[in-house]
Amino acid sequence: MKTKVLLDEEEVPKQWYNILPDLPKPLPPFIDPETRAPGVGIAPRIFPKAILAQEVSQERWISIPEEVREVYMLWRPTPLYRAVRLEKALKTPAKIYYKYEGVSPPGSHKPNTAVAQAYYNMKEGIQRLTTETGAGQWGSALAFGCMLFGLKCTVYMVKVSYMQKPYRRVMMEAYGAEVYPSPSDKTEAGRKILRENPDSPGSLGIAISEAIEDALTHEDTNYGIGSVFNHVLLHQTVIGLEAKKQMEVLGEYPDVICGCIGGGSSFSGLIWPFYYDKVSGKAPKNTRFVAVEPTACPSITMGEYTYDHGDTARLTPLVPMHTLGHDYIPPPIHAGGLRYHGIAPTLSVLASTKHVETVAYNQIEVFDAARLFIRTEGIIPAPEPSHGLKAAIDEAIRCKETGEEKVILFLLCGHGYFDMQAYDDYLSGKLMPYEYPREKVEEAMKRLRKLYPWLDEVKSRYIQ
Amino acid sequence: MKTKVLLDEEEVPKQWYNILPDLPKPLPPFIDPETRAPGVGIAPRIFPKAILAQEVSQERWISIPEEVREVYMLWRPTPLYRAVRLEKALKTPAKIYYKYEGVSPPGSHKPNTAVAQAYYNMKEGIQRLTTETGAGQWGSALAFGCMLFGLKCTVYMVKVSYMQKPYRRVMMEAYGAEVYPSPSDKTEAGRKILRENPDSPGSLGIAISEAIEDALTHEDTNYGIGSVFNHVLLHQTVIGLEAKKQMEVLGEYPDVICGCIGGGSSFSGLIWPFYYDKVSGKAPKNTRFVAVEPTACPSITMGEYTYDHGDTARLTPLVPMHTLGHDYIPPPIHAGGLRYHGIAPTLSVLASTKHVETVAYNQIEVFDAARLFIRTEGIIPAPEPSHGLKAAIDEAIRCKETGEEKVILFLLCGHGYFDMQAYDDYLSGKLMPYEYPREKVEEAMKRLRKLYPWLDEVKSRYIQ
Repeated sequence: MKTKVLLDEEEVPKQWYNILPDLPKPLPPFIDPETRAPGVGIAPRIFPKAILAQEVSQERWISIPEEVREVYMLWRPTPLYRAVRLEKALKTPAKIYYKYEGVSPPGSHKPNTAVAQAYYNMKEGIQRLTTETGAGQWGSALAFGCMLFGLKCTVYMVKVSYMQKPYRRVMMEAYGAEVYPSPSDKTEAGRKILRENPDSPGSLGIAISEAIEDALTHEDTNYGIGSVFNHVLLHQTVIGLEAKKQMEVLGEYPDVICGCIGGGSSFSGLIWPFYYDKVSGKAPKNTRFVAVEPTACPSITMGEYTYDHGDTARLTPLVPMHTLGHDYIPPPIHAGGLRYHGIAPTLSVLASTKHVETVAYNQIEVFDAARLFIRTEGIIPAPEPSHGLKAAIDEAIRCKETGEEKVILFLLCGHGYFDMQAYDDYLSGKLMPYEYPREKVEEAMKRLRKLYPWLDEVKSRYIQ
Repeated sequence: MKTKVLLDEEEVPKQWYNILPDLPKPLPPFIDPETRAPGVGIAPRIFPKAILAQEVSQERWISIPEEVREVYMLWRPTPLYRAVRLEKALKTPAKIYYKYEGVSPPGSHKPNTAVAQAYYNMKEGIQRLTTETGAGQWGSALAFGCMLFGLKCTVYMVKVSYMQKPYRRVMMEAYGAEVYPSPSDKTEAGRKILRENPDSPGSLGIAISEAIEDALTHEDTNYGIGSVFNHVLLHQTVIGLEAKKQMEVLGEYPDVICGCIGGGSSFSGLIWPFYYDKVSGKAPKNTRFVAVEPTACPSITMGEYTYDHGDTARLTPLVPMHTLGHDYIPPPIHAGGLRYHGIAPTLSVLASTKHVETVAYNQIEVFDAARLFIRTEGIIPAPEPSHGLKAAIDEAIRCKETGEEKVILFLLCGHGYFDMQAYDDYLSGKLMPYEYPREKVEEAMKRLRKLYPWLDEVKSRYIQ
């Protein structure tokens, strides 16, 4: 029995798969809140043309530039594992597989898009990219991508993370990035916050505003984004394309695929190619796709599918997505990468048409799953992918009850070497479960409608 | 051009290579300081029979138990990379390859032996292993190995590390180990120190004493060791055996192999199989083996080749090795794994017969090399393997001057995700170079001879 399947680097995909032409219904457009009409807002001023083209492309297959593939080869193809010891511990007849993206130098799936974004910006003469980071995975990935293509990189890191997670900052600096605690005195947005509240701990919303302002006010500078946008999810499909080949080597095909969702990029990267199999009639099974979120940030399971801003400062256009409200304040849970108030528009479509199932777990359940995984498989997972792992374990336990020999695949999108504080809190009993209150969503939706009284009219025109 | 060579897991070696029958001269015996005659001291009371047999075996090939191979498959075979971007940055005609052991769950080469040791102890009915750890890599590896074979694991972690490196402690606890700051109140040795100095920061010497006493005083408990001993180096030869296959795939053979040495286990694991090629006449080249140590702990380049204890508390027998003196106090450098006063007896033989070259670098030079590697190859190396990397870079620069297209192989035995504090100190200019003073070695050797006035007599009988 094989423990893992490794592919030769010649099998790094040559094309990304784009789901747009295969969506069950067309993607609703972004809305400019000024004109209330479709519009992409500031996007053309902060993204290169190649990225803007990919964002709306109806081409099913998009070639991966050879220079990007060559960088991918530093860690791709990533391994596909069979979790033999986990299966034994669960006494399940199910087969559990996981695709492991933690082998990339920054330690997660994020460089799959960071490298591509850095490349396209470099090709169009951009000298520098800005971005925001909270937990630090995305900032690390963009710093890495920029370094390899000779771009400068500026990361606005939420101040409280900057203080509490110095090692993620050091990693970005080791990759040559400049990292500022946000709010900073580098931007008008930051200075305004600091004038009002010199002790502001910062937020992702503020950091996004700073990163975008920095890009807007410098001719040679663009902005890089880590999730939600179509082109980001597109770049992540190397995960699923490789996983399909690896399952083929094993003569297997998944019955169920589980992954965590924050903005939705890792989950989409894995499932899109399997979804393509399904809609094109090539899939040998009616595979289920299970998206897993924290009960502390239940964007799909509790949020409303409507139009909302992508950022707290409302710099982005209105995005058609499930949302908890753009003024959502993340509770202090450890899955930093999953604390985003919205999700990718494509994923919202797939969830609304029931092509994707959704489930939410609290962080205690998730760390219990992570501990079982560590004690059987050895790899220490990040808290984020442990959500997908928890769903896979629950599915395997159901198989034990029903006797079904299902093939379960989940995405281990990053390692937990930078999350040891979270494990310390968990192991010493300091973690608490947290359920985001439904009333808070309702209040946020009321505030949103007060801001845009015409929201439901636009919603009914474009969504559903 | 291939970036890396991955082998299928069926190619995980089935046998370890044992250098003892092929050494250029016989290994001098351990000496019992009481009797002044050959003797292994407490070894039979803290190691299982299978390990004791391997320690002195004259069999060239020793079968790897299938259960151990199956665990190896969780991360083995490890990748062999060509450092294409590093070559370009150096503008060298040389080809630089590296074998990467950082992909193991604990993040270094250490589990290659930890897993084997845990297995043999489990087979002989042992319930628990004890060990010491300073920087934490070895403790993490043994905790991992014990977990997978159902053994309990107790780690005595040098108190100052326990306080300053909580994340390594958490990693061991996540693997289910109990970790005590040493000196602890769990042993007589620890209590004695605490009575004399309640604020003792601990030392590796004290931690070793505690771990050994714990094993000696519990029937069901043995001790696990991370380097120096023959059986440990033997277990590491999976590294070199895989590297040879991977070079074969590429149609290459190394002219030079570089690696760091603390006790010598990772370096020996890589070079032994190539050394075998040489002595058996199978090597197509007269490969050079370069062992690299810090100028702060120059065991071979400055130490004397004589008999000395392996631990500060003098619990071990006298070991034939290059030594800085068993009372060596490590200066505060960041390559925690290289701060050992002695080296493996086999390596001492190979160095004394010039089969292995040795060189020492200070930590600034080493971190400069690490930074260049990070900025070209992306992987953040631990400070320890960055010593071998520095030697590889220097060799590549010499090739640039001579125009030689040498094939250089170095061992990247662990990642640096747990060493970000060291990188922060380096990047912010806080690191200092340090050269261990020759007088300190001379003083230590005087103390040793005062302790054992008969030392030179025994030395001349068995060494050289």
